[in-house]
Amino acid sequence: MSDMTSMEFKDFLKRDPVAILILGATEAHGIHLPLDCDTVQPEYIADRIDERLDNILIAPPLNYALHSTTKNLPGTISLTFDTLRAVVHDMLASLHSQGVDKFVVMTGHSGGGHMTAISEGCKEFVSKTDAQVMFFADCDIGEGCPEMRDVMHDGHGGLAETSRMMAIRPGSVKGERPIGRYLSKGSLVLKDASITFPEGMVGDTTKASVELGDAINKFITENAIAMIQNGFK
Amino acid sequence: MSDMTSMEFKDFLKRDPVAILILGATEAHGIHLPLDCDTVQPEYIADRIDERLDNILIAPPLNYALHSTTKNLPGTISLTFDTLRAVVHDMLASLHSQGVDKFVVMTGHSGGGHMTAISEGCKEFVSKTDAQVMFFADCDIGEGCPEMRDVMHDGHGGLAETSRMMAIRPGSVKGERPIGRYLSKGSLVLKDASITFPEGMVGDTTKASVELGDAINKFITENAIAMIQNGFK
Amino acid sequence: MSDMTSMEFKDFLKRDPVAILILGATEAHGIHLPLDCDTVQPEYIADRIDERLDNILIAPPLNYALHSTTKNLPGTISLTFDTLRAVVHDMLASLHSQGVDKFVVMTGHSGGGHMTAISEGCKEFVSKTDAQVMFFADCDIGEGCPEMRDVMHDGHGGLAETSRMMAIRPGSVKGERPIGRYLSKGSLVLKDASITFPEGMVGDTTKASVELGDAINKFITENAIAMIQNGFK
Amino acid sequence: MSDMTSMEFKDFLKRDPVAILILGATEAHGIHLPLDCDTVQPEYIADRIDERLDNILIAPPLNYALHSTTKNLPGTISLTFDTLRAVVHDMLASLHSQGVDKFVVMTGHSGGGHMTAISEGCKEFVSKTDAQVMFFADCDIGEGCPEMRDVMHDGHGGLAETSRMMAIRPGSVKGERPIGRYLSKGSLVLKDASITFPEGMVGDTTKASVELGDAINKFITENAIAMIQNGFK
Amino acid sequence: MSDMTSMEFKDFLKRDPVAILILGATEAHGIHLPLDCDTVQPEYIADRIDERLDNILIAPPLNYALHSTTKNLPGTISLTFDTLRAVVHDMLASLHSQGVDKFVVMTGHSGGGHMTAISEGCKEFVSKTDAQVMFFADCDIGEGCPEMRDVMHDGHGGLAETSRMMAIRPGSVKGERPIGRYLSKGSLVLKDASITFPEGMVGDTTKASVELGDAINKFITENAIAMIQNGFK
Amino acid sequence: MSDMTSMEFKDFLKRDPVAILILGATEAHGIHLPLDCDTVQPEYIADRIDERLDNILIAPPLNYALHSTTKNLPGTISLTFDTLRAVVHDMLASLHSQGVDKFVVMTGHSGGGHMTAISEGCKEFVSKTDAQVMFFADCDIGEGCPEMRDVMHDGHGGLAETSRMMAIRPGSVKGERPIGRYLSKGSLVLKDASITFPEGMVGDTTKASVELGDAINKFITENAIAMIQNGFK
Repeated sequence: MSDMTSMEFKDFLKRDPVAILILGATEAHGIHLPLDCDTVQPEYIADRIDERLDNILIAPPLNYALHSTTKNLPGTISLTFDTLRAVVHDMLASLHSQGVDKFVVMTGHSGGGHMTAISEGCKEFVSKTDAQVMFFADCDIGEGCPEMRDVMHDGHGGLAETSRMMAIRPGSVKGERPIGRYLSKGSLVLKDASITFPEGMVGDTTKASVELGDAINKFITENAIAMIQNGFK
Repeated sequence: MSDMTSMEFKDFLKRDPVAILILGATEAHGIHLPLDCDTVQPEYIADRIDERLDNILIAPPLNYALHSTTKNLPGTISLTFDTLRAVVHDMLASLHSQGVDKFVVMTGHSGGGHMTAISEGCKEFVSKTDAQVMFFADCDIGEGCPEMRDVMHDGHGGLAETSRMMAIRPGSVKGERPIGRYLSKGSLVLKDASITFPEGMVGDTTKASVELGDAINKFITENAIAMIQNGFK
Repeated sequence: MSDMTSMEFKDFLKRDPVAILILGATEAHGIHLPLDCDTVQPEYIADRIDERLDNILIAPPLNYALHSTTKNLPGTISLTFDTLRAVVHDMLASLHSQGVDKFVVMTGHSGGGHMTAISEGCKEFVSKTDAQVMFFADCDIGEGCPEMRDVMHDGHGGLAETSRMMAIRPGSVKGERPIGRYLSKGSLVLKDASITFPEGMVGDTTKASVELGDAINKFITENAIAMIQNGFK
Repeated sequence: MSDMTSMEFKDFLKRDPVAILILGATEAHGIHLPLDCDTVQPEYIADRIDERLDNILIAPPLNYALHSTTKNLPGTISLTFDTLRAVVHDMLASLHSQGVDKFVVMTGHSGGGHMTAISEGCKEFVSKTDAQVMFFADCDIGEGCPEMRDVMHDGHGGLAETSRMMAIRPGSVKGERPIGRYLSKGSLVLKDASITFPEGMVGDTTKASVELGDAINKFITENAIAMIQNGFK
Repeated sequence: MSDMTSMEFKDFLKRDPVAILILGATEAHGIHLPLDCDTVQPEYIADRIDERLDNILIAPPLNYALHSTTKNLPGTISLTFDTLRAVVHDMLASLHSQGVDKFVVMTGHSGGGHMTAISEGCKEFVSKTDAQVMFFADCDIGEGCPEMRDVMHDGHGGLAETSRMMAIRPGSVKGERPIGRYLSKGSLVLKDASITFPEGMVGDTTKASVELGDAINKFITENAIAMIQNGFK
Repeated sequence: MSDMTSMEFKDFLKRDPVAILILGATEAHGIHLPLDCDTVQPEYIADRIDERLDNILIAPPLNYALHSTTKNLPGTISLTFDTLRAVVHDMLASLHSQGVDKFVVMTGHSGGGHMTAISEGCKEFVSKTDAQVMFFADCDIGEGCPEMRDVMHDGHGGLAETSRMMAIRPGSVKGERPIGRYLSKGSLVLKDASITFPEGMVGDTTKASVELGDAINKFITENAIAMIQNGFK
């Protein structure tokens, strides 16, 4: 909806639109991926959905998320829990006051605190209205892709993300492909959890490919479309 | 910094960077301008500054602002005061924890509540650190441009904004050029202040031109560069 | 209403009263003016309005405001943004629960953060009720007075305020009449903004006079009365 | 300090002043007493203290308090708990930042929630500084006055308050002198607790006299002076 | 209700139950009493009430309270004001959403801040619903017991509490029986108020007995039952 | 520590204790389990740990948690996110101010929002101190027990919980053993998520046994002891 005029937006409301809120991030993703890759991926999926359905309204992305493990890695910018919850709530409430009743909140970043902050913002909004909100992380859907089922230990900045970025914006994957480990530090609440990501990412990206990325992106797109077509009452 | 990797960001810190935080908006701007024009304009200025100085770090834009008068016009998405203040604070604090000490907070939207929310977020941050923050609305600087000095009653979505958008992203200015009035409703605190903008914008855009837009953009750029070069201690 | 009894207040409600909330301040105003002059001035105006209209209910003044630039000058006592917003909201909500529906919030101090805090408090109240609230700073109206139109660079503690205080409470203007400058520090968010007021006030008070003060006070009174008579629905 | 200039305030700081914060109220006090009597009484005490000690700095009164039982009686204006706590904190913190280290917080109103709100505001301030704060309600001290010891069931708007007001501002006690009962409603948390005050005040005011008022006022003054002289470290 | 199943709870709702919320504490009570004695006492009373009335629903106790004077004595765990207020509100609101309409909030600890926090939580809840809430401290009722009327200077961890604990859980009163003083520090807001309790408790416990404890417990029980039977509308 | 006196607590601090905070719940767990089973289970584990290590300090349990899916099932009492976060923070901060430096926060309930609320409370505390905090749900550890590895679809109130309760407090498991399903409702943010638990619990409890419960409890105990012995620095 960024390049719509006010009147075009008003006209579009007649289609009973589904607004997609893209919750991106600015976050360190290893030595090879750009800081905006958690924004780029859901934006790409949203564009694919928009090509297929005629009542999609893509709201401008929120370019910041809540980060815990990667908070201290170079380039990560993190909102606090209360801030993110409030932004999500306000975006939903403001669009709803404009006449939108169906929402897909799609986040490119997935982590416990981040997901709960969004979820709490959505719940607070839903409890006060009759609007319907669907909420998911595109990467969580991607884990179910057949091509990824036998891949062990893939995660943040790993095989799936690298492949998807190669497919979406080729030049953005730079230099050597890293292999990263997740080192558990048990149940301790850490001041700097980045020690659990010694390489700043998790997974084996040496096998990343455009083909794999395309497959995952397509899988997510198809699933999201099915959810949008069937999930709203 | 969106397309930097984590390591590229880390390297850039050696330049003692000035981070530019672009505070955009999604807001109705009359029948002729796109909803994102308050994001596009400061982004354009930031890019021009970046071409001229070698230590500029452009943070991904915040695409939402606080709106009062236009809140109910189609397409405006508004954050509340507390939310915007918190986002601005968190963005500054998080970038500062990464090693950035100089900030330019440049907003494309200018309104009393919006400016105070940002200002309060900046002040809270500044009171706790030794970082330096410069804060302004690009359009407020633009008002001082020689070409605009004799223009009366220009404002939101008016001659200056239309001309600037024509210069920045030509196709984005659509249809007929409107003339809009501001109708004062006195000192009453209004539930729906959009009645003061019967045309949803203020000014006479029939005289808008690429040349005028270029002049204003250039004037803002030069002033901003001078402020960055001379304003930090 | 300070010296009314509970029953007298109850009787007065039959007149469909307009409650005037005086938002004063305790703030440094140069070497010559008392700390309470932003309380004294709107109190004086409220009393003049009360002499002319028969349904005016003057609530006891709030003697504290939000200060930014003068915060560190000797004698300024400042509330924070959230506190001031909450006080204004509570005063309105409590008086409204008593049966008052029309409010004039008149502040003697005028500054960006201060005005927004009051405005946000008013808006929050208005959004929840059918009450009507008018909000302005008496000094902002005074700027439109014919006698002041050609005066350049007058501001905080300057010609207008000094003249008004001379007219209202003569003995309160003490010693020599200062001349004060405003020194811009550009767009930097300052930890101590009092450096922009080297004399602690702005303007040339050597020409201050009771006559000018009377003229300004009269101008504000007439305008405020017109607003009260015509502005409420 | 209201009529001091900024420079006079600065000079006064050399005396190591004790700042008195008068926390007044706007509250129904029966058919015979004015709404501001909880402001007038501590102001009077503060003035008497000021006559006797040479380092007293009387801050402008806060004219609003937190009310529970009388909240719905005509003329009561009540702040909420969080608002009052915040105002008290801000007043102390701001004066402390100006160089004041000793504070007497004297409230004219006394009620559970009100006293806790002030106390919490004081404690929050004290926990962060080395300043000393003394906090009491003048009426609570007055209860110890020998002349009042045998008086049963006197309270809000009763014998002591009426006599004190007669002594302080004679004309302010109007009409007939009421007798008021307190009717306990047990432990129920009431939506409207004013039913426990059927006369809106408690006590037998028929015996009120200027002499009794003077005695109580004098007793409070002497005790407060002793506390100020001996209570600070 | 702890050992009820979900279905048993649902069945019990048919009795129009009175839910008792036990607000206990973990607090130093001298050298002789256990830290949980402010939980044990109201639990004991609740059990006695439950034996006599057939619609009592005892909610699991909250084991933490707000402490001021004893905050720094070994073993005290204190919630802050806002936290306690929120917990009380949430417990009431959640049980009410389950279908409970009558509540007895019984606290074992009694102190100004603590009582106000609970009271504010109750009032916020009551203002939004038609539920009825009764709130008291069991020890405050106990003070009216005939056997205690001539006892001077008994308080926290004193004669009444020691006797009650001897009657409720004999082995829990350990070692020598202390005598404790309350030392007033005047009106100063203290950083560490435990200096007013040099023995950590107040009263003469040498005369404590099971008989006295039984008498107080019985007195509280009878009074509470009468309040429950007569106090709700 | 409930039955310790203040002095016993003070003595215990010499052992450099590990405080265990038991975060229980009051929550519907199907037709067969009591509402307090999420409190009983971690209490049992804490007691077993206490038998084996000599520096364990068990804080009184918090009997309330944050519930989402089961919020509307009979008997569930739920705190809100902010309340739970605050309680956890206050408990840690208060015990830390008493001299405790090592904490195990063990919750019997495990759900996204609940875990994040606790985690945020712990992180806020950890960020301000040098104390160490370990945080886990006992049931999450139990999932790794060899006897449970081949069990599919077991969850809330299921095989593991039923068996553990049978082993801990036999009489508390009542009536028939249910089989419960989890019905996914996709990504919709639900107003009442209990529709995903048609039986109010998930799993096949017909095979529950004391032996299995003992095995799981022992597995959790051994793992927790190892974490406590090895996990703190």
